[in-house]
Parts: sequence; C-alpha cells; structure tokens
Amino acid sequence: MEHIFDDAYFMRKALQEAEIAFDKGEIPVGAVIVIDDKIIARGHNLTETLNDVTAHAEMQSITAAANFLGGKYLQQCTLYVTLEPCQMCAGALYWSQISKIVFGARDMERGCINLKTKLHPKTKIEGGVLAKEASELLKRFFIMKRNLN
Amino acid sequence: MEHIFDDAYFMRKALQEAEIAFDKGEIPVGAVIVIDDKIIARGHNLTETLNDVTAHAEMQSITAAANFLGGKYLQQCTLYVTLEPCQMCAGALYWSQISKIVFGARDMERGCINLKTKLHPKTKIEGGVLAKEASELLKRFFIMKRNLN
Repeated sequence: MEHIFDDAYFMRKALQEAEIAFDKGEIPVGAVIVIDDKIIARGHNLTETLNDVTAHAEMQSITAAANFLGGKYLQQCTLYVTLEPCQMCAGALYWSQISKIVFGARDMERGCINLKTKLHPKTKIEGGVLAKEASELLKRFFIMKRNLN
Repeated sequence: MEHIFDDAYFMRKALQEAEIAFDKGEIPVGAVIVIDDKIIARGHNLTETLNDVTAHAEMQSITAAANFLGGKYLQQCTLYVTLEPCQMCAGALYWSQISKIVFGARDMERGCINLKTKLHPKTKIEGGVLAKEASELLKRFFIMKRNLN
C-alpha cells in the first residue's frame, strides 16, 4: 500500500494555504506544521491584511502549533512551507527547536540559506518539494500585481 | 535647557518594560518604539506567558507600532530594546525598514551582530545604552531562577 502521507501530500496542504493568501491579495506563501502525520497548524501570509511585517505564514503556524501543543517547543514537528523561510522565520524556528523544515521554492535573495541564518543543531532542512508549483503561484501573483498597477 | 528625550530616557522606559517581564517570571527584556520623541509602542518578553517563542519584546513592539501607525513600515521610528536583538527580531526589523535600533546589553551568542543577520540598508544600529542596568537585571533573573530550581 502506498504511503499517502509523504512530503508532497503535506506540501500540497501548504500550497492550499498559499492559494488562500493569493485570494486575499497577499504574497502567496503557505505553511502547515505536522506531528505524527497529523496537521496541527496551518498558516498563510497575512502581512497586508494585518498590516504587520511579522505575519508570515511560518510565524502564524509556529504560534498556532505551540497553542495546540500547549508548549512552546516544536521538537517533534515538521514545518512544510511553500517558500524558503526568511531570516525572521528561520530565527523563530531556531527558538522553536523544530525537528525538520521542508520548503518548496528557494528564495535566493531573502531566504535563510544564502543569508546564513543559524538553525538549531537538532533541525534538519530540505527544499525543492513542489518547488515548481510554489514558484509558479508566486510568479502569477507578481504578474497580476504588475498588471493592476 | 537640557534635552530630556535622549537615548537614556527611552532606554529607561524599555527597562521598565523589562522589569514588568521580570515580575511575570519572563526573561527580562523590554522595548519601546519611538517616533518624534513620542513612544508609540511598548513591549516585553512574553514567551512563557503566551507559550510562544515568537513573543519577544521587539516582536510585540513592532506589531503594536504598526497597529498604531496604520501601516506596516516603521521607517521614521527608533526601537529601544534592553538586549541586542536575536536573528528573529532583527529579521522582523529588516522587513519593517525601521530607521534606527538602539540596544542595551550585547548578546554575544544569540545576538544579530555576531550571527550577522542582515538589516535593511536604511537601518542604523547602536548599542551600549544603559547596558549595565540591562545585563544586571538579566543576571538577577537567572540567579533567582537557579535558586528556585
């Protein structure tokens, strides 16, 4: 029997969150946090809606997951996020001691890899899961924005 | 006439916030955000109270200042914070495009300077304002914690 709860499965859920952001006029980035194949938090970028630069998909999800777990550390959890985390989000993930970060598209300019944000020694990070879908959604958003202005 | 609204004046306000954190059993870090000599946001560390690693003094203040201003950029603002910002907070400050960061005590291990977190090109940063007071409050907190455990 095929194991349906693979990285692509959860990244599709994160992409659904990114699409919700898209529909709200937000830069379309979405995230879910998973523990034992169960989604315990969902989030999408809300920086425009909330007028708040800290309202990235990952930040919403970290807060929601900690709320669900009743504790602030996410040591058994995996974050799926459609775009490579920025310094702020990677910095928050450092504090959370999260077990694993799986991202979709790379962010060469503002992502945590090229900017060398320090992650917790216990945190693994990998990327490229449904990267094409994630970056196409972002491209579609910026083309639409350009045409509106 | 002496100009009372100097860096020490606002850092004292940030220290008052740190003391509120102390009284709540939180690592005592406090912050205020100032525009035109006026405090528009105050915050203190609430990570234990809220069970949330993202609830640093700076994050609370950034959100509150944007709320006050009705816009997410803090280009005319100065943040006063009793401890050098971590990667997460410096990353949030990057997005906020804040004009100036003034901190008290250095954080050699987890602060943004040694970890080389990228700030916005328009952001100035300086430290050492009431550093002794800020670090003594932190030391007092950790001694108390050690004696309780």
